[in-house]
Amino acid sequence: MRSQTLSRSFTPSPSTYSFFPPSLPILHAFKTNPSTSPSLPKSPLSCIRNCTSITAKPSSQFSKTRTEPEPDNKLRALRQLFSKPGIGIDAYIIPSQDAHQSEFIAECYMRRAYISGFTGSAGTAIVTKDKAALWTDGRYFLQAEKQLNSSWILMRAGNLGVPTISEWLCDVLVPGCNVGIDPFLFSSDAAEELKEAIAKRNLDLVYLYDLNLVDEIWKESRPKPPNKPIRVHDLRYAGLDVASKLSSLQAELADAGSSAIVISMLDEVSWLLNLRGGDVPHSPVVYAYLIVEIDGAKLFVDNSKVTPEVMDHLKKAGVELMPYNSILFKIKSLAAQGAQLWLDAASVNAAIVETYKSACDIYSGNTKNKSKSNARTCDTSAGQSGGPGGPTAIYRPSPISLAKAVKNSAELEGMQSSHLRDAAALAQFWVWLEEEIHKDVKLTEVDVADKLLAFRSMQAGFIDTSFETISGSGANGAVIHYKPEPGSCSVVDPEKLFLLDSGAQYVDGTTDITRTVHFGEPTAREKECFTRVLQGHIALDQAVFPENTPGFVLDVLARSSLWKIGLDYRHGTGHGVGAALNVHEGPQSISYRYGNLTPLQKGMIVSNEPGYYEDHAFGIRIENLLWVKEVDTPNRFGGIGYLGFEKLTFVPIQTKLVNVSLLSVAEIDWLNEYHSQVWEKVSPLLNGSAREWLWNNTRPPLVKL
Amino acid sequence: MRSQTLSRSFTPSPSTYSFFPPSLPILHAFKTNPSTSPSLPKSPLSCIRNCTSITAKPSSQFSKTRTEPEPDNKLRALRQLFSKPGIGIDAYIIPSQDAHQSEFIAECYMRRAYISGFTGSAGTAIVTKDKAALWTDGRYFLQAEKQLNSSWILMRAGNLGVPTISEWLCDVLVPGCNVGIDPFLFSSDAAEELKEAIAKRNLDLVYLYDLNLVDEIWKESRPKPPNKPIRVHDLRYAGLDVASKLSSLQAELADAGSSAIVISMLDEVSWLLNLRGGDVPHSPVVYAYLIVEIDGAKLFVDNSKVTPEVMDHLKKAGVELMPYNSILFKIKSLAAQGAQLWLDAASVNAAIVETYKSACDIYSGNTKNKSKSNARTCDTSAGQSGGPGGPTAIYRPSPISLAKAVKNSAELEGMQSSHLRDAAALAQFWVWLEEEIHKDVKLTEVDVADKLLAFRSMQAGFIDTSFETISGSGANGAVIHYKPEPGSCSVVDPEKLFLLDSGAQYVDGTTDITRTVHFGEPTAREKECFTRVLQGHIALDQAVFPENTPGFVLDVLARSSLWKIGLDYRHGTGHGVGAALNVHEGPQSISYRYGNLTPLQKGMIVSNEPGYYEDHAFGIRIENLLWVKEVDTPNRFGGIGYLGFEKLTFVPIQTKLVNVSLLSVAEIDWLNEYHSQVWEKVSPLLNGSAREWLWNNTRPPLVKL
Repeated sequence: MRSQTLSRSFTPSPSTYSFFPPSLPILHAFKTNPSTSPSLPKSPLSCIRNCTSITAKPSSQFSKTRTEPEPDNKLRALRQLFSKPGIGIDAYIIPSQDAHQSEFIAECYMRRAYISGFTGSAGTAIVTKDKAALWTDGRYFLQAEKQLNSSWILMRAGNLGVPTISEWLCDVLVPGCNVGIDPFLFSSDAAEELKEAIAKRNLDLVYLYDLNLVDEIWKESRPKPPNKPIRVHDLRYAGLDVASKLSSLQAELADAGSSAIVISMLDEVSWLLNLRGGDVPHSPVVYAYLIVEIDGAKLFVDNSKVTPEVMDHLKKAGVELMPYNSILFKIKSLAAQGAQLWLDAASVNAAIVETYKSACDIYSGNTKNKSKSNARTCDTSAGQSGGPGGPTAIYRPSPISLAKAVKNSAELEGMQSSHLRDAAALAQFWVWLEEEIHKDVKLTEVDVADKLLAFRSMQAGFIDTSFETISGSGANGAVIHYKPEPGSCSVVDPEKLFLLDSGAQYVDGTTDITRTVHFGEPTAREKECFTRVLQGHIALDQAVFPENTPGFVLDVLARSSLWKIGLDYRHGTGHGVGAALNVHEGPQSISYRYGNLTPLQKGMIVSNEPGYYEDHAFGIRIENLLWVKEVDTPNRFGGIGYLGFEKLTFVPIQTKLVNVSLLSVAEIDWLNEYHSQVWEKVSPLLNGSAREWLWNNTRPPLVKL
Repeated sequence: MRSQTLSRSFTPSPSTYSFFPPSLPILHAFKTNPSTSPSLPKSPLSCIRNCTSITAKPSSQFSKTRTEPEPDNKLRALRQLFSKPGIGIDAYIIPSQDAHQSEFIAECYMRRAYISGFTGSAGTAIVTKDKAALWTDGRYFLQAEKQLNSSWILMRAGNLGVPTISEWLCDVLVPGCNVGIDPFLFSSDAAEELKEAIAKRNLDLVYLYDLNLVDEIWKESRPKPPNKPIRVHDLRYAGLDVASKLSSLQAELADAGSSAIVISMLDEVSWLLNLRGGDVPHSPVVYAYLIVEIDGAKLFVDNSKVTPEVMDHLKKAGVELMPYNSILFKIKSLAAQGAQLWLDAASVNAAIVETYKSACDIYSGNTKNKSKSNARTCDTSAGQSGGPGGPTAIYRPSPISLAKAVKNSAELEGMQSSHLRDAAALAQFWVWLEEEIHKDVKLTEVDVADKLLAFRSMQAGFIDTSFETISGSGANGAVIHYKPEPGSCSVVDPEKLFLLDSGAQYVDGTTDITRTVHFGEPTAREKECFTRVLQGHIALDQAVFPENTPGFVLDVLARSSLWKIGLDYRHGTGHGVGAALNVHEGPQSISYRYGNLTPLQKGMIVSNEPGYYEDHAFGIRIENLLWVKEVDTPNRFGGIGYLGFEKLTFVPIQTKLVNVSLLSVAEIDWLNEYHSQVWEKVSPLLNGSAREWLWNNTRPPLVKL
C-alpha cells in the first residue's frame, strides 16, 4: 500500500517549508550495505545501523524514582500536534539522522536529544499518545538511564527479548493507526523497510513533509543553523578541477542512461565541488544538495555561506546556486522535464525519492495506478521506476563514493604532508605528557585531550579535530567508544595503560591515529596483549594481495595472533578515510563482516587498527593509516597486479610494551625499520625536547633475544 | 509456464521404466551453493558447476580434416527418436550427471561419453536436429579435440565469447521449440534454472520420464549396471547405530514440520544406514534412494545386491526394501497420503521433485491452478509449495550433510588408524621409488601409480583408491587435474619435481595426500616456491580461530606467503572428506570463494593443500588431512570456544626442497615437530628399508642458519 502522502499536500513549496532542512542525529553507518559497514573502533560494539533494527530490553522493570520527576511539557506539546488538521498521527518517530546521513551533525538538528534529553550520538525516540520510548545501544545504557526522565521507557538495543522499533509499534498501536515521520530524516531504503514492517499490523507510515513536529515545539530556543562561510579547497590539494570532475560524472550518467543525479552525502558534494565548510564539528563539510545534469549542475545551499571567491569558483565550473530548501521544487521540475534521475536510495532521503516517484506518476499520467509505481524494485543496485518514455528513477549506488575513495596524487601528497605535521604535534604532545606525569602532575583525560588539541592547533593548516578524542586511562581504555567528560573523567594513572585515539582536519589532509602507552612498568599480561595486537598490525601492514581482493579477506591477518591465545576484538580492523574530508568513509573496509565485496584499489586509504580490550582493566589499540599501492612483485601470477600498503602515520610505537620473545625476526625488523622511517621523516620538523623524545623513542633497534 | 510434463503421461509406472535409473556423468560440485563449492585440486580450474553456466569458444574455426570422418550413426539414430510419438523434441541434452549428483559414476551411466566419444569426466552434450555440440572446460580441450568427430562442435567453456548452453539453445532454436531432458539427470534447481533461461526465447523444457534416448540407441552394448554386494559398515567404525541415526533424523523432520524426506545423495544414504557398496569406482557407495518417514524408512535399491547380512541389519533398524525403480511410485503415494515432504532441490533430481509437485497439485485438487503451484519459492533454504492442509513440499538443504561432516569419535579413530597404515604404505612406496630411480630404472607415471596401489593393497582393510592417482613429473605436475594414461604418459624424470596426489579407501577410513619431491638437485626457484607453499601449509595447520568461523576466512593464511612474491594457485585450499566415504564432501570448505558460510566445527575433516603451478615447468602441492578440534586457549574472549586443527596425515615432507633461510624459527619448529610425530606414529608399522627410509626422512632436525 502506498503511504498516505498522496492524500495530502505532499510536497511543500519552498516558501512553506522551514528555512533549514529537517534532520539530524548521528547514524554510524556509511553508504555501504548496512551489513557491511566498517565497524569502527569509535563505535564498533553495536552501531545503530538503521532505525528498524534496534532492539533493547524495556527498562520498565528498571524504572526507579527519579529525583526530578519532570512534568514533561515537551511531550505534552508534541502530542497536542498529533491531532492537528493535516497531521493526524498516532505516533511520531524522531531518529538520530540529519537529511544527509551525516556522522556528525549541527546542533540545530539534534531533535532527538532535545525531545528526550538523551544526548548520546545514537538513539531513536518514538512518542505515541500515551508512551515515549528511546532505543539506544550498549555504549549509552548508563547515560540514557541518567538523562531520560520517568516519562520515557529505555529500550536497551541488543539485549535479548527487546523489541525492534517496528515490533514495538505493532505491539502498542492498533490496526489503522498512523505513524508519522519527517521524511527528510530517513533514507529512502530505511523508510521503505519501516513501512513494510509496520504494514503487517496494518499501520500506515505518514510522511510529514511540511513541518518537523519537534521544531514546532522547540521554537525560539532552537539553535540557529550553522552559517560558517564556505571555502574553496585549493586545487593543489584537490588535484582535479571541478569541471573535470563534473564532466567525468556526466559521462557516467550518460553511460547509465541517466540525465541527472541527486547527490546528498555532504562529503560527496564537498569532494565533487572542491569546497570545504564548517557546518558540523570534525567534518569540513557544508549542508547542501547537488543536482548534476548532463549539461550543468545546481548547488542547493544557504546563500549566506557563499563568499565571492566561492561564487566565482562555482561560476567557472558552471555550477548554479539555488536555495537549500528549494530541493523538492527542483526534484518535481526534473520529473516535469522527463528526467532519468539517478538516486542512491541508501543515502538519498525519503522526501526526495518519494517526491520524485509521485511526480513521475503525475507526469507519466499514471497517477491512477499507484500500486504499480510503488512497486519499486528491491534490487537497489540498478532498479528503475517510472513509465516508459516518461521521467524515470534509476536506483543505483552513488558513483561518487568510489571516485572519492581512490585518491589522486595531489590528495595523497596532502595526506602525507599533513600526517608528518600531525606526527610532529604528537611528538611535542608525548614529551610534554611524559614530563608532566613524571613530575607527578595530576592530569585528567580531558586535560590531556585539550593539550593535544593545543599542540595540533599550532601546526600549519590545522582546522579541527577529525572526531572526538578518545583519551582513556586504565579501564576507560576498554570502553571502545569512550568519551571523557570534564566533570566525570579519570586522572591519567601513571601505573596503567593509556589509550589515545585522535585525529585532526588540516587544510590538506585528515589524520586518525591511536597509540597505547604505559608511563611506568607494564605487567607481563599487558605486554603479551600489546605484542599480539602489534603482531596483527604488522601482519596487515605487510600484506601483499592480488588486485580485486575485498578488504575482509585480510581481516584475519590482524586477528590470528590474538586468536592463538583465545583473544579477539569486537570491531573491524580498517575503515576508509577522506582526504581533508570525513575521517570515516566507504566504500571499502577491512572487517570481519564478510558482505562488503568492494575490492581494495590503488590509492585508497584505510586504517589499520587491531586492538584488545580487557573489561574493567585496560584497552589496547595500535592504529596507523595506510594507502594502497601497487607492489612490484618478482612474479605476476595470473597476469594481474599485486597490491600492498604504504604507511601515512609516523609516530613511535612504545617498545617498552613489546615482549620481544614473542616476535619473529621479521616482526622485529619491521618495527626497527618503522622507527628509522619515523625519525627520518619527522625529525626535520622538530627541535629541542620533542626532537630528543623522537630520537629516544625510535632507537635503539630491538634485537631478538 | 509449466513444463510440458503435465500434458503427457509424466510419471512412468515402475514396470514401464527401464530397470536402472537414468543418469550419469561427473559433476564436480557438491551439494553446497554452486558458487561456494570447494574448488578441488583434482579439478579446480574451471569446474563445470551446472549445465547452464558453461561457456566455451566454438571450435568451428579450429575444425580440421579428421582422419576418421566417422559417419555418425549414433547421432542419426538419436535424432530419429526426436519425432517419435510422445517425444516430440527439437533438441536433447545429455549431461554428465547420474541421478544422484555423484562425483564418480558407474559405466552404464556414461551416456555423454557414449554419444559423443568424449570420455573426460566433465562435459555436456546437446544434439539438435542438425547440430551437435559439446561443452567442456580447459582441462579437457585437447582431449575433446582428439575424441570428438567432425559432427561435433567443441564449446570451450571458460573462453571469452563462448555461449552458455542456454544462450546457444536460444540462438540455434526458433521460438516454440522443445528441448528434451532426462529429468533424473538434472537436480531440480539446475532444471529450473535451465527452464527459466530458455523460456526467454519461448523454448519449452520437456521432461522425458519414460525413457533415456541414449539408452534407447545404446541397447545391448550398454554395460550392465553394477551389482556388487552391499556390506554392513561395522558399528566400531560407524560409531552410531542406524536406529539412533534414524531417530535423530525423524526428530529433525518433526521439528521442521515435515513427515518424510527423500535422500538421494549416495554417500548420505550409505552414512545413514551404515552400509557400504561397490557400485562406483573410488567411492564405497550403492545406487539407492532412501525415504525416511516419521515412523519408518524405505531403501530403494536393486535387491540382488542385498546380502542376508545386510537384510538382517536393515530389518533390525526397521528399514524396508523397495525396488530402486519404484521411487516415483512411492513419491506419488506420499502425496496421496498428504505428506509434508522435505526435498533438497540442489541434490534431488527434477524427476522426483516435479513428480511430487504434480502429485501435490492433483491431491490438493488444485490442478487447474498450475501456474500457482509452479511458482516455487526461490528461497530454497526453507521454501514450501503445495496447498494448505494437503501434501506439501518443504524445500530445505539436506540435514544429513552436516551430520555426516561432523565425525564422531569412532569415525575419527578409524580415520586416524587408516591414515597410519596408509602412511606405512607410502613409506614403503617412496623407498622403492627412490631406489628404482637411483638405479636408473625408467618408470612411467602410470607405473609409479600402479606400484603405489600395490603397496596400499597390502595394508589391512584396503578397498580401493579414493580417486584417480595424480602422478605428474615435471610439467605434468602443473596440470592440476592431470591423469596419466598408459600410452601417453611421461617417464618420471629424476631431474624434475614429481607431484603425487593419491588416496585410498579402507574399511575404516578414507585418505587423501599430496607430496612433491625431487630425486636430484632442485633449482633455487623450485625451492623458493616449495618453501612458500610449505609456509602456507604451516600457517593454516597452526591456525586457531573462534567458533562459527567459516572456512574461507582462513584461506588467506595459506596464500599470503605466495602473494608476497606475486604467486598464487587457482584452486581452493581445503575440502571436506568422508569417513570411509567420499573423498570430497561438503558442506564446509576452505576456499577463496567467499559464499560458503558454513562454520568449521569440531570433528569436521578438511584437507590442507596449498600449491603452486608453473606452466610447462613444474607443479607443487603439499596436502595433509586435518580434523577440527577444540583448542584449550589460555583465554576465551567472548565466552566462546576456540578451534584449531589436528593432523591425520603423517608422511615426511622432503626437506631437500626447503629453503631454510625463508622460514621463521616457528616454522622450522613446526616441521621438526611434525617429523618427530611421523617417526613416532608410523615407525612401529614398518621394518627394514622402509623403516630406515622413514628415519632418514624425519631427521636431522632443520636449524635456522
